[in-house]
Amino acid sequence: MRINDLKAVLKENKLDFALFSNLDSTKTDPNMLYFSGYGGLGALIIPKKQKPFLLVPEMELYRAKKSMIKRVYSMDKKRFFESIFTTIKRNNIKLKKVAIDHNHLTLNVYRNFKKQFKNVKTKDISLDCFKLRQIKTNSEAAILKKACSYGDKILNKAIKNFRDFKTESEVAAFLEYETKKLGLGIAFDPIVASGSNGSMPHYVPGNVKLKKGFCVIDFGVAYKGYCSDITRTIHLGKINNKEKVVYNFLLNIQKSIIENIKINGSCGRIYGYCVKNLGKYSKYFTHGLGHGIGIEVHEFPNLTLNSRDKIAKNMVFTIEPGIYIPRKFGIRIEDSVLMRGKPVVLTKVTKDLLIV
Amino acid sequence: MRINDLKAVLKENKLDFALFSNLDSTKTDPNMLYFSGYGGLGALIIPKKQKPFLLVPEMELYRAKKSMIKRVYSMDKKRFFESIFTTIKRNNIKLKKVAIDHNHLTLNVYRNFKKQFKNVKTKDISLDCFKLRQIKTNSEAAILKKACSYGDKILNKAIKNFRDFKTESEVAAFLEYETKKLGLGIAFDPIVASGSNGSMPHYVPGNVKLKKGFCVIDFGVAYKGYCSDITRTIHLGKINNKEKVVYNFLLNIQKSIIENIKINGSCGRIYGYCVKNLGKYSKYFTHGLGHGIGIEVHEFPNLTLNSRDKIAKNMVFTIEPGIYIPRKFGIRIEDSVLMRGKPVVLTKVTKDLLIV
Repeated sequence: MRINDLKAVLKENKLDFALFSNLDSTKTDPNMLYFSGYGGLGALIIPKKQKPFLLVPEMELYRAKKSMIKRVYSMDKKRFFESIFTTIKRNNIKLKKVAIDHNHLTLNVYRNFKKQFKNVKTKDISLDCFKLRQIKTNSEAAILKKACSYGDKILNKAIKNFRDFKTESEVAAFLEYETKKLGLGIAFDPIVASGSNGSMPHYVPGNVKLKKGFCVIDFGVAYKGYCSDITRTIHLGKINNKEKVVYNFLLNIQKSIIENIKINGSCGRIYGYCVKNLGKYSKYFTHGLGHGIGIEVHEFPNLTLNSRDKIAKNMVFTIEPGIYIPRKFGIRIEDSVLMRGKPVVLTKVTKDLLIV
Repeated sequence: MRINDLKAVLKENKLDFALFSNLDSTKTDPNMLYFSGYGGLGALIIPKKQKPFLLVPEMELYRAKKSMIKRVYSMDKKRFFESIFTTIKRNNIKLKKVAIDHNHLTLNVYRNFKKQFKNVKTKDISLDCFKLRQIKTNSEAAILKKACSYGDKILNKAIKNFRDFKTESEVAAFLEYETKKLGLGIAFDPIVASGSNGSMPHYVPGNVKLKKGFCVIDFGVAYKGYCSDITRTIHLGKINNKEKVVYNFLLNIQKSIIENIKINGSCGRIYGYCVKNLGKYSKYFTHGLGHGIGIEVHEFPNLTLNSRDKIAKNMVFTIEPGIYIPRKFGIRIEDSVLMRGKPVVLTKVTKDLLIV
């Protein structure tokens, strides 16, 4: 089905085939993974007419053959595009105009591609891929739901054990350990930002003692290649009334944003609704309101200022308003949301203010 | 010093400035990190004559100001190259010919760059950067040494506790947990491949029971931005004589390769020496013999067939021969080596055959 959707894009644009490639063994190409189930070294070719196939180094053959793609060839990594070219020729696939992924192809890889595919025209289909990927199938939605449920379980366990942790790194390490023990991956490095560190939205947890006050915990797992994403802000030690008021102010806004999401709603307007509600605090809200999640932790739609994206059925995205008072504290509350007829919150860890 | 080396490259190639950029908050640009100490969102500009500066989104200002670069401007992420262009103009920096990094710039980012920098000529300096980075300064060598020592400590702890683990995932989770608890990063997802799984060099550990037989453990930490890399193969359960012989055969080759490394030695020849010694087993050795390590886990030099790289003083690289018998087992023994007058092995976990 995914491949048929892509083939429709190829037909519409008169493209002979789509080429996705990955030459870096430490990375995964998300589009290759999406269309084939294989994310390792190699190339995926999806011709407009013929069946798709993978070309992978010999040492990846076994892994590739377990993917959704039934035709797998071995290739010489040193002769990457030469191997691809030869296989395409051998399979009598036309190569006048080729779909490539400008979002992942570096200038170096592109140059090597052009050396081999000399007179071939190319067209970027990265945006088309993002657009296909933003609407989740039922099986993808089920995987994302499960990913979020795993994330909840692990985050709850960390919160329950919070008094055992001395440093930010220990909390982050615990979250990752519980994730990996289940054979799951980490969607991104967890953020554990206590006290004034919480005022930096992208703070990297340090081997430093947990400070009193708010502690932002932003965490996601990768399950079957799909990312969950949740943030909770708990409070360590005695809390004063003003802190309580600010937390609940943000929480009510977060809930209200989610409740008001409708199919066809403009993402720019949802962002605007958040900013309007934040009032005088809006200047302390320094990042986007949310983003799609899927194979990548940042996908379409974008819930940012001036975004023209629109909410559609079966999108999965985050809603994560925050208030960051420089050098003082930070609060962020983030859920992953699946859009059905109404928004369905997939992340279920309590949002009530927790004081540990 | 690093910046002065780069400025020399700029002068030699008549380039007005070098531009490194990172538009993906989940990634780090290694060259930006190398030259500035900052690896987050934003851009680093190193002019041929003036002082270098960073442009980062407001929320990264604090982090960026802690880097080696003293001039930091805030920028609008939505107007990325526009902000860069304006700041360059304001600082009276010439912009006829610009050094860019083809290895990290995607076609999409390049297109956005060209929209703003219309009549500017560009030159790829990715290779120059790799070449600068392959020779480590004393402070880099000290960091890598420390990274390897941390890696050793954690791997030794895992081996000591091996009987407690039931699954491959548990071993991988333990390695990561111990790493993160110390506030260190993971250089790459650990490989824990037991029994027949070990015959796949890039096997991803599963939530599956540890199989009897050889178990390949490939693991690295990131300390102060620098990667360690080590592989040990231990044996679970009773071992037969043939297995012992193959292990020690490979171990002797690995030791002999390292002992024979000399300054100016050809990396292609070192690879050839390995293959020659492997004899009839060479067809079961399906990957490169080694690679430089530093900010990235795969850097220069390349110790592969036909590599023209030469060993130089103060390079740090891996030596990792392996034997992979399809569907049966795999053995890999890998050390990280610092080249001084002689090779200095930085990874010190015992290579004697361990049976647990």
